[in-house]
Amino acid sequence: MTAMRKSGKPWGGRFAQATDPQVEAYTASIQFDRRLYKYDIQGSVAHARMLAKCGLLAKAEADKIVAGLHEIGGEIERGEFRFDPSFEDIHMAIESRLIEKVGEAGAKLHTGRSRNDQVALDVRLYLRDEIRQIRRLVAGLERALIAQAEAHLDLIMPGYTHLQRAQPVLLAHHLMAYVEMLERDRARLNDALARVDVLPLGSGALAGVGLPIDRRFVARELQFRALSANSLDAVSDRDFVIEPLAAFALLMAHLSRLAEEIVLWASAEFGFIELPDALATGSSMMPQKKNPDVAELTRAKTGRVFGALVALLTAVKGLPLSYNRDLQEDKEPLFDSVETVKAALSVMASLVSGLAFCRDRMQQAAREGFLNATDMADYLVRKGMPFRQAHETVGRIVRRCLAKRCRIEELSLKELRAASPLFDRDVFAYVALEGCIERRKATGGTATGTVKKAITAARTRLGRR
Amino acid sequence: MTAMRKSGKPWGGRFAQATDPQVEAYTASIQFDRRLYKYDIQGSVAHARMLAKCGLLAKAEADKIVAGLHEIGGEIERGEFRFDPSFEDIHMAIESRLIEKVGEAGAKLHTGRSRNDQVALDVRLYLRDEIRQIRRLVAGLERALIAQAEAHLDLIMPGYTHLQRAQPVLLAHHLMAYVEMLERDRARLNDALARVDVLPLGSGALAGVGLPIDRRFVARELQFRALSANSLDAVSDRDFVIEPLAAFALLMAHLSRLAEEIVLWASAEFGFIELPDALATGSSMMPQKKNPDVAELTRAKTGRVFGALVALLTAVKGLPLSYNRDLQEDKEPLFDSVETVKAALSVMASLVSGLAFCRDRMQQAAREGFLNATDMADYLVRKGMPFRQAHETVGRIVRRCLAKRCRIEELSLKELRAASPLFDRDVFAYVALEGCIERRKATGGTATGTVKKAITAARTRLGRR
Amino acid sequence: MTAMRKSGKPWGGRFAQATDPQVEAYTASIQFDRRLYKYDIQGSVAHARMLAKCGLLAKAEADKIVAGLHEIGGEIERGEFRFDPSFEDIHMAIESRLIEKVGEAGAKLHTGRSRNDQVALDVRLYLRDEIRQIRRLVAGLERALIAQAEAHLDLIMPGYTHLQRAQPVLLAHHLMAYVEMLERDRARLNDALARVDVLPLGSGALAGVGLPIDRRFVARELQFRALSANSLDAVSDRDFVIEPLAAFALLMAHLSRLAEEIVLWASAEFGFIELPDALATGSSMMPQKKNPDVAELTRAKTGRVFGALVALLTAVKGLPLSYNRDLQEDKEPLFDSVETVKAALSVMASLVSGLAFCRDRMQQAAREGFLNATDMADYLVRKGMPFRQAHETVGRIVRRCLAKRCRIEELSLKELRAASPLFDRDVFAYVALEGCIERRKATGGTATGTVKKAITAARTRLGRR
Amino acid sequence: MTAMRKSGKPWGGRFAQATDPQVEAYTASIQFDRRLYKYDIQGSVAHARMLAKCGLLAKAEADKIVAGLHEIGGEIERGEFRFDPSFEDIHMAIESRLIEKVGEAGAKLHTGRSRNDQVALDVRLYLRDEIRQIRRLVAGLERALIAQAEAHLDLIMPGYTHLQRAQPVLLAHHLMAYVEMLERDRARLNDALARVDVLPLGSGALAGVGLPIDRRFVARELQFRALSANSLDAVSDRDFVIEPLAAFALLMAHLSRLAEEIVLWASAEFGFIELPDALATGSSMMPQKKNPDVAELTRAKTGRVFGALVALLTAVKGLPLSYNRDLQEDKEPLFDSVETVKAALSVMASLVSGLAFCRDRMQQAAREGFLNATDMADYLVRKGMPFRQAHETVGRIVRRCLAKRCRIEELSLKELRAASPLFDRDVFAYVALEGCIERRKATGGTATGTVKKAITAARTRLGRR
Repeated sequence: MTAMRKSGKPWGGRFAQATDPQVEAYTASIQFDRRLYKYDIQGSVAHARMLAKCGLLAKAEADKIVAGLHEIGGEIERGEFRFDPSFEDIHMAIESRLIEKVGEAGAKLHTGRSRNDQVALDVRLYLRDEIRQIRRLVAGLERALIAQAEAHLDLIMPGYTHLQRAQPVLLAHHLMAYVEMLERDRARLNDALARVDVLPLGSGALAGVGLPIDRRFVARELQFRALSANSLDAVSDRDFVIEPLAAFALLMAHLSRLAEEIVLWASAEFGFIELPDALATGSSMMPQKKNPDVAELTRAKTGRVFGALVALLTAVKGLPLSYNRDLQEDKEPLFDSVETVKAALSVMASLVSGLAFCRDRMQQAAREGFLNATDMADYLVRKGMPFRQAHETVGRIVRRCLAKRCRIEELSLKELRAASPLFDRDVFAYVALEGCIERRKATGGTATGTVKKAITAARTRLGRR
Repeated sequence: MTAMRKSGKPWGGRFAQATDPQVEAYTASIQFDRRLYKYDIQGSVAHARMLAKCGLLAKAEADKIVAGLHEIGGEIERGEFRFDPSFEDIHMAIESRLIEKVGEAGAKLHTGRSRNDQVALDVRLYLRDEIRQIRRLVAGLERALIAQAEAHLDLIMPGYTHLQRAQPVLLAHHLMAYVEMLERDRARLNDALARVDVLPLGSGALAGVGLPIDRRFVARELQFRALSANSLDAVSDRDFVIEPLAAFALLMAHLSRLAEEIVLWASAEFGFIELPDALATGSSMMPQKKNPDVAELTRAKTGRVFGALVALLTAVKGLPLSYNRDLQEDKEPLFDSVETVKAALSVMASLVSGLAFCRDRMQQAAREGFLNATDMADYLVRKGMPFRQAHETVGRIVRRCLAKRCRIEELSLKELRAASPLFDRDVFAYVALEGCIERRKATGGTATGTVKKAITAARTRLGRR
Repeated sequence: MTAMRKSGKPWGGRFAQATDPQVEAYTASIQFDRRLYKYDIQGSVAHARMLAKCGLLAKAEADKIVAGLHEIGGEIERGEFRFDPSFEDIHMAIESRLIEKVGEAGAKLHTGRSRNDQVALDVRLYLRDEIRQIRRLVAGLERALIAQAEAHLDLIMPGYTHLQRAQPVLLAHHLMAYVEMLERDRARLNDALARVDVLPLGSGALAGVGLPIDRRFVARELQFRALSANSLDAVSDRDFVIEPLAAFALLMAHLSRLAEEIVLWASAEFGFIELPDALATGSSMMPQKKNPDVAELTRAKTGRVFGALVALLTAVKGLPLSYNRDLQEDKEPLFDSVETVKAALSVMASLVSGLAFCRDRMQQAAREGFLNATDMADYLVRKGMPFRQAHETVGRIVRRCLAKRCRIEELSLKELRAASPLFDRDVFAYVALEGCIERRKATGGTATGTVKKAITAARTRLGRR
Repeated sequence: MTAMRKSGKPWGGRFAQATDPQVEAYTASIQFDRRLYKYDIQGSVAHARMLAKCGLLAKAEADKIVAGLHEIGGEIERGEFRFDPSFEDIHMAIESRLIEKVGEAGAKLHTGRSRNDQVALDVRLYLRDEIRQIRRLVAGLERALIAQAEAHLDLIMPGYTHLQRAQPVLLAHHLMAYVEMLERDRARLNDALARVDVLPLGSGALAGVGLPIDRRFVARELQFRALSANSLDAVSDRDFVIEPLAAFALLMAHLSRLAEEIVLWASAEFGFIELPDALATGSSMMPQKKNPDVAELTRAKTGRVFGALVALLTAVKGLPLSYNRDLQEDKEPLFDSVETVKAALSVMASLVSGLAFCRDRMQQAAREGFLNATDMADYLVRKGMPFRQAHETVGRIVRRCLAKRCRIEELSLKELRAASPLFDRDVFAYVALEGCIERRKATGGTATGTVKKAITAARTRLGRR
């Protein structure tokens, strides 16, 4: 015990030489895994109780351990804990402090467990918490989008494909598209959570534990849904990190799209939104600038999370069973991604809530660019013309308008009839923007009633979980 | 119509100039999306029937269309279909041929749909099929592993951490670790499938459809679980490609680990397996070589799927709504990944089934390297010594053995007692390999009975889905 | 020999069983490496001549081999060569055909070489050619940009930061920014080429060749700059693939930026450019659409090349020396990236050349958005005000203009003097756009003369290499 | 000025509202860019001197600024500097402190520059230093490898392909393969350095500087090789970060291969090396373990650098000109990669130096596995048999040995002659391992003399730069 207390190494016995300080620094994780302290203590408490229940610890010893662990938790929270860099990791730092505090009982805590299953446990506990929190933040961003959608249910804007104006849509419909993306993100996080929420403790170093332990007891204490089913897998698996990272990557991809649109809309050319001063920044050189930095940084941070995913996939590629030290490299990309995703979700929710939409610019834009051309073709279809012919006919009408620099609806009926005798006076009503919007009432369409239903459905889902 | 038939372009009307052939080649997708033909026809048949049901097509027209589409399907299957490179994509190639065959009725097929929702539909139909097939192939590999596990239930090998011999495990337990990984892969594919299995048709180009269509009818015809809920999202989303790619990436990471172990085990140094000649290859220069190329290529192909995932994530990063042509770049990485994953699963199943295990080498290896040291520490723990002290005591015993070049169990009781008076004659039975194995009987451990239960559970799961 | 001729396997001797067809398909590369045929023949011709020179082949045998190889080259070019899928790769396909043609002499060709060094040679020859060609295509795109820059030397547009209008710049200056990027790409390709242009042949399978060969002779025949210096490295290195892929990735990142700008500029909101019909595409549903698909696809194809880089990096990660079959996975990502980069460069050059700039829109945009605010601050600096104070003063003036909805230069001198007494009548001339442009004449600035010099310098560099 | 001093924002003037603290935190970079302080001061000193030289500052003002900056540098070095989180970045923190110290003169420092060119400058200065240092560390690892190579010039080991024993090589030759890889890394770093070593200052925010500055003077002061040639490019380019990251990625890929071999060689199965206790670690549960954690972590950290490269490539994809806030995301991946690469190089050099090679195991391994089979085929070739036939003949001999469980050289001459009458008594000498080694004396081969020459050449190169 002396050896460990002095060196901080839980494996001094077999070694004749002290560890090279450079190696100590290279292999240490305490500078980043200290954020797991809460989960490490939580796991150790459950483990100690189980050892007592199974007769591997005396009840009194377990009580001392649990009390000691809680004290240490308090010390860390209050910033009183000295993180000695000579301890490799948070697990040894806590165990060593425990032995200092409660003596021999503390030296019994590691009975029937290994750092391999302990680390896996701590990260799973951490991720379970963080995924739940991220799920809530996703819901928060959804609510911000829905609130803006509801507040602008009557605002028509150009819908784009290829960044070319295509058909008129409601701004609300556009915003609700992001709600759909985010709803898939929440579902993916839920699915991932089911595979995170599995107890690895009891796997030992790799082969299981040779003492009569009770894994189900620990699972109940820590509220895990399931036990890991193979000890070799349990200590060498990092799917439970990679799958959430993949879900985060897709979530960030969605945010990058929203961010891009905010950047575009805030440009002088689009002029669709005004950013509140409080959420924009200026330039050190150009006095007139007001920049959408929040959106830009969100767009860029996407790369960070993609990079973390690649880092982890690379790290596990080609590793033989079971635990390899390579797996320690899971933590920094994971922690960084969790922080990035949480910050991005939270600041984007503020940004969305703070957007002021320039109604006139948006509506004006919807009136230019022949956004009703498809409906004019539909008009001909309804009059019996095959769609392909209708498309071509209206294509020629558009070419004519381009030459004349006018809108479709500014052509005379005579001019339209020159293109097709099927045109009648009712075409002008048919191609009015409001009609284009309201006719699209099948599920998923931009008709006001349909969008309202989508909003209601989204609110219901958000209420449910 | 003439314009389209001649140029293959469904949008000739508005354009005064013909497309540059270089641009045609650059933007064309028919060279790779032709593999979607089956799904395109399937989707168009359902669409035509819906149009007829809704009165947007005469019954007779719909019948002509459906018959024509089936004929075209036959032509393609029989290799009689001429894939004119001047058609941009498979969708236009089929529609154009249909118009050739059935005339005006054919020109009505595109009523109420756009290539944007049509493409999304086809890829979803394709992926739904392929994910189901990949799920079956995963199950096949699981079965191959389980069969080998069952056939070697009594074979003890070294379990490794850090590629150092650590504790004895059953080969069956080791193989079952991969079954656990693959089982998670199947679960992930199932979860992804739920989000793939959603009907996008009826979203139009971006805003929904301005004609009175019936999306539910189409969904029933094509057996989709749900309708997409927002048209802008439906045409610009590629989550349904990226999520499966992420699941494939993780699956390949698992295969890369199995492959690595096969490469290691087939080396002269390990000598744990013999590859069948039929599944190995030789060298053009060195006459004695027998190489595990199948495992090596599987290991390397992991990179390919990681790359495809990165390609798609990059492609969608920062795209504004809704459809952008960028999304066409989803297909080649997807198709290539599907083919890669299927081939890897299938060939790895053969390889696993074909492995001959060298019992003597494996068992011999398990006897060397102090694999029972942990159990000797546990022995001391049972005798009352705190674990940390027990670990250190055995560490010192190991150092002594290294110096004497002997095994733990070859030390005399006297020598052991010099390290700790707690040692008694029963220690030698306690540290016998079989005991080390059989004591690990908690869920997930390597005890024979526990592994048998794991095998039974795995078989049950495989039976269920 | 019979064995090989029948099975296509150059290593039949040691094997008792035939290869499983599934394994044959999985390990075969002939479906994609056939494109190396030209280089394989080139390399084999040089190798045969060297063998003859060193007395390892009779002169007559070498002549027969060389003649046979050239015949085979002709057969392949004319499409007469039967690519038997039972041959693993292009190398065996050609060697086997050679033996068919010239008998025993052909069976001597592989003397003193292995497929490991042969493959490395072929890929290096291929890449050397392709890098040179890509370098030329980069130069072509640079020329297209320079031509547009020269044709619009007087056209002022808004320069952007954060996609907010920032300061006026010349369109020519903006276009020349891409020339700078591309010039770095050319330099990087050159640097990479130096490391590609190294002869690996003579490394044997891994250890060098045990026969008296002459590597320098081969290097001269094939015009390589250097010999590989370590045989183990030479057969297991794929740096010469990865480094060019990294250069391609950066090149594509540049093209993605140019593509993004073309998409933005072609939008109705910017309206800075008109795409020629021949380089745009339309919509199957919306008759009015004209889309910048070429730019969008280029932007997306960036992901493809990033993915290829990740694929290769992943494949080599953690591979022990020397050759592993994993390395065969270098080819498809490489070939695909080369084709992608070449197509993108070539079509983007056409697109740039075809752009029509809308002078009025660009100039009008430059006049709005206080693009001269920085110069107004500089004005105050010249009058003695510290920059930080000048910046703040002009910031307040801008806020006033925003409230009054006017431009800086539309304020009266009195209003300006209210902000600072340093303002004088000459401020109006100072903040005129032309002045803002022309004052920036230090190297790299947007002054007309400076841009002209940059154009001249770029032309000179392009002339040189 | 008051505004900036209070808010830390250099752009308060135009804004009516204070920045949201959440936005402040999200956009701030001071927590990581503080490590640039040295370079920021260095750049500002040069800038101030240039302003004075050009008459934009009084000599006395410049002197005050320079003195103030040096004082601030001292404060930071001594840990006395208060990094106020309300300052966005290190640049503002220093400038603000300077104004505090020297008053109005300090407020003039930002004359003629922008944060955009200032940041680019600082990162380039930082990278120039770090690349030089990494180059030295690469050289250090090369020296460690060369020293081990020289110390073991007579040690024969098995060379591997496909992790199968292939041909005998010198350990020295094997180690020198890594020297070759690292030498390419050094060359790549040099090439990248040429493109890093370019002065961006003088580009202003984007358009160049409107005051009469002297960029050449600054370049001389800071010893830059060149001036950036286009201001828009200079502020929006991050090639100078991405290219080094790509070089680091390849370097780490090399280290991952070396690490993999150390892990393999340290396994009981290979038993080729003994790790010094000081460079290995133990297990918290298994008392006997000695693990190669340093090598494992190096292998895993490869993923981290790959991830950083992907993060940056993703961040710049599709960005329009010129500066976008996205570019701020370059720093953390860069800093982390630089630290990772430096630590990995340094610790791997120690590890390589500390390796003890187990001569007997290596030599014994080289004698098993028919490593001389290729030379036996060469023997037949020298006797006139075509290589393909010789290969097949020896293949059959190997099969016979496998059946008899003997080595090639243990067959009798009679048995050999049964395979081919060309065999003679001299074959036994020909296939002795030493002969196999020494015959490979062409450049790059494993013959002792050739390896010695390679060592000399490597030492010369290391001496040169």
